[in-house]
Amino acid sequence: MTRVLIAAKPATRARYRDLLPAALSDAGVRADVITEGEAHEPSAVDWMVYAPSSDINDFTPYTRLKGCLCLWAGVENIEGNATLAAPLTRMVDPALTRGMVEWVTGHVLRHHLGMDAHLDNPDRAWRSAVPPLAPGRPVTVLGLGALGGACARVLAALGFPVTGWSRGPKDIPGVRALSGSDGLREALGRAHIVVLLVPHTRATEDLMNAETLAMMRKGAVLLNPGRGALVDEAALLSALDGHLGHATLDTFRTEPLPRDHPFWAHPRVTVTPHIASATRPASAVRVIAENIRRGEVGEPLLHLVDRSEALT
Amino acid sequence: MTRVLIAAKPATRARYRDLLPAALSDAGVRADVITEGEAHEPSAVDWMVYAPSSDINDFTPYTRLKGCLCLWAGVENIEGNATLAAPLTRMVDPALTRGMVEWVTGHVLRHHLGMDAHLDNPDRAWRSAVPPLAPGRPVTVLGLGALGGACARVLAALGFPVTGWSRGPKDIPGVRALSGSDGLREALGRAHIVVLLVPHTRATEDLMNAETLAMMRKGAVLLNPGRGALVDEAALLSALDGHLGHATLDTFRTEPLPRDHPFWAHPRVTVTPHIASATRPASAVRVIAENIRRGEVGEPLLHLVDRSEALT
Repeated sequence: MTRVLIAAKPATRARYRDLLPAALSDAGVRADVITEGEAHEPSAVDWMVYAPSSDINDFTPYTRLKGCLCLWAGVENIEGNATLAAPLTRMVDPALTRGMVEWVTGHVLRHHLGMDAHLDNPDRAWRSAVPPLAPGRPVTVLGLGALGGACARVLAALGFPVTGWSRGPKDIPGVRALSGSDGLREALGRAHIVVLLVPHTRATEDLMNAETLAMMRKGAVLLNPGRGALVDEAALLSALDGHLGHATLDTFRTEPLPRDHPFWAHPRVTVTPHIASATRPASAVRVIAENIRRGEVGEPLLHLVDRSEALT
Repeated sequence: MTRVLIAAKPATRARYRDLLPAALSDAGVRADVITEGEAHEPSAVDWMVYAPSSDINDFTPYTRLKGCLCLWAGVENIEGNATLAAPLTRMVDPALTRGMVEWVTGHVLRHHLGMDAHLDNPDRAWRSAVPPLAPGRPVTVLGLGALGGACARVLAALGFPVTGWSRGPKDIPGVRALSGSDGLREALGRAHIVVLLVPHTRATEDLMNAETLAMMRKGAVLLNPGRGALVDEAALLSALDGHLGHATLDTFRTEPLPRDHPFWAHPRVTVTPHIASATRPASAVRVIAENIRRGEVGEPLLHLVDRSEALT
């Protein structure tokens, strides 16, 4: 009987508490599931199912931990935690990937089709200029991991010329993949629409800053469903007052975005409330259960985090 | 040397006049290309490249005509013309199909993701409710021809449960295809989003009327990139004041849509200016040239119109 602790805010842990036991049972794992809110003996916990918004930040008492299974795709708030000695996995959930693909594809098409001018058209103007077709609209995806790679594939299938950029070389059919700083300049310089989906690490903090934003084309659009900390906010606001066409942002340094934040008022900014990469408990519990099964029988864990680039 | 007449409004005929000779030459056809605006002998014209907005409506003098090659996908303004004895083809242009797929996919995702609430959010509300994923959002496409079939395939590939409806039975992988009046009731009753892409014929005039609009679910969305005449406007406005969630319309009985039309002011209507199905001259001339080549060597024409259902 392995012991699993769900560490998350009350609403989240209640949902996982409802769904995880059946998923573990389906995976053939005999487990005792408790939550952060219940009295428990840290040294008896084998697995932690962890949302970084949990109140648990010191893993020292969890001496027997076999793994910390993060419920989020982004692990920047946990991967640098020096008190965590156990292996760390990120959430790679087919439903989360699907949600991201839908958000990215929807907002790429929105900007591609120039929808905003039709949705807000108080002058009743009949602007019959036809937008270019997808093959005339280059899109760049920064980050070609589980999320960025899936978005790049779908956008390429819709006919957009897709350039991808990642830390190391990648090979995705139909996607021109670049890497390195020269690659970044080229990837940013050619796109009408740039999608930001790199993980948040030391190397990617403020990846979009005055210098890199200046590499983007006049009128280009930035979509950030990745992480707020990938963008230097002041530099973005300044670029939006200059050559940049629009920014559609789903992630922010502080969430909910404070009501007095200039993003709310800027005519070239669209705010969406961190909905692109929501983890769906019903599918996430199956991913968690499979990893606990693997750990219990000595198979390698899926979606292990390489912590060498972690923020500290 | 075959004689080709381009019959269209001045701006359109000028564009085709520029592009068609090279396309004909590429297809191996020796041709003399003239336009409606030039003096010409009707009885010497072999082929008419025809936009239904042309001033030519009486084909009687065109005694030698081998074919009328329509530049539009919709042929309802020409197919019933009793003075036209020659074969009639509709435009099936890969670029037109692509444009339609982009518009339909973009607006389906817009409604699916609830974008409008984020684009127009003066209260700065952080509504973090996550929309369902595509598999929880049934979509129905009415019409499974070149345009509807292509849209149905792409929406199904994105994960939407797609129901198609057409006059006769069709078989599209991944799409539940229905036909007949019982099929229409079922197709309309299950969808969150209905896409209207049937051709405009006697049988489809006012297809969406008080009775059929009442078959749609509460809160459902109607997209009409097909033809304005497919919708009873008064019935639609009434349904939008009742159970219907939204209508996004790209085609109208009168275009441009008159400034005093109630669609402009209705909070549940989005007007787009007939951009979904624009013919792109660069690709359309290749389709036209191929059909003239076929006609000249006695091969069957592509995209022939069955005029038995024509409006008269």
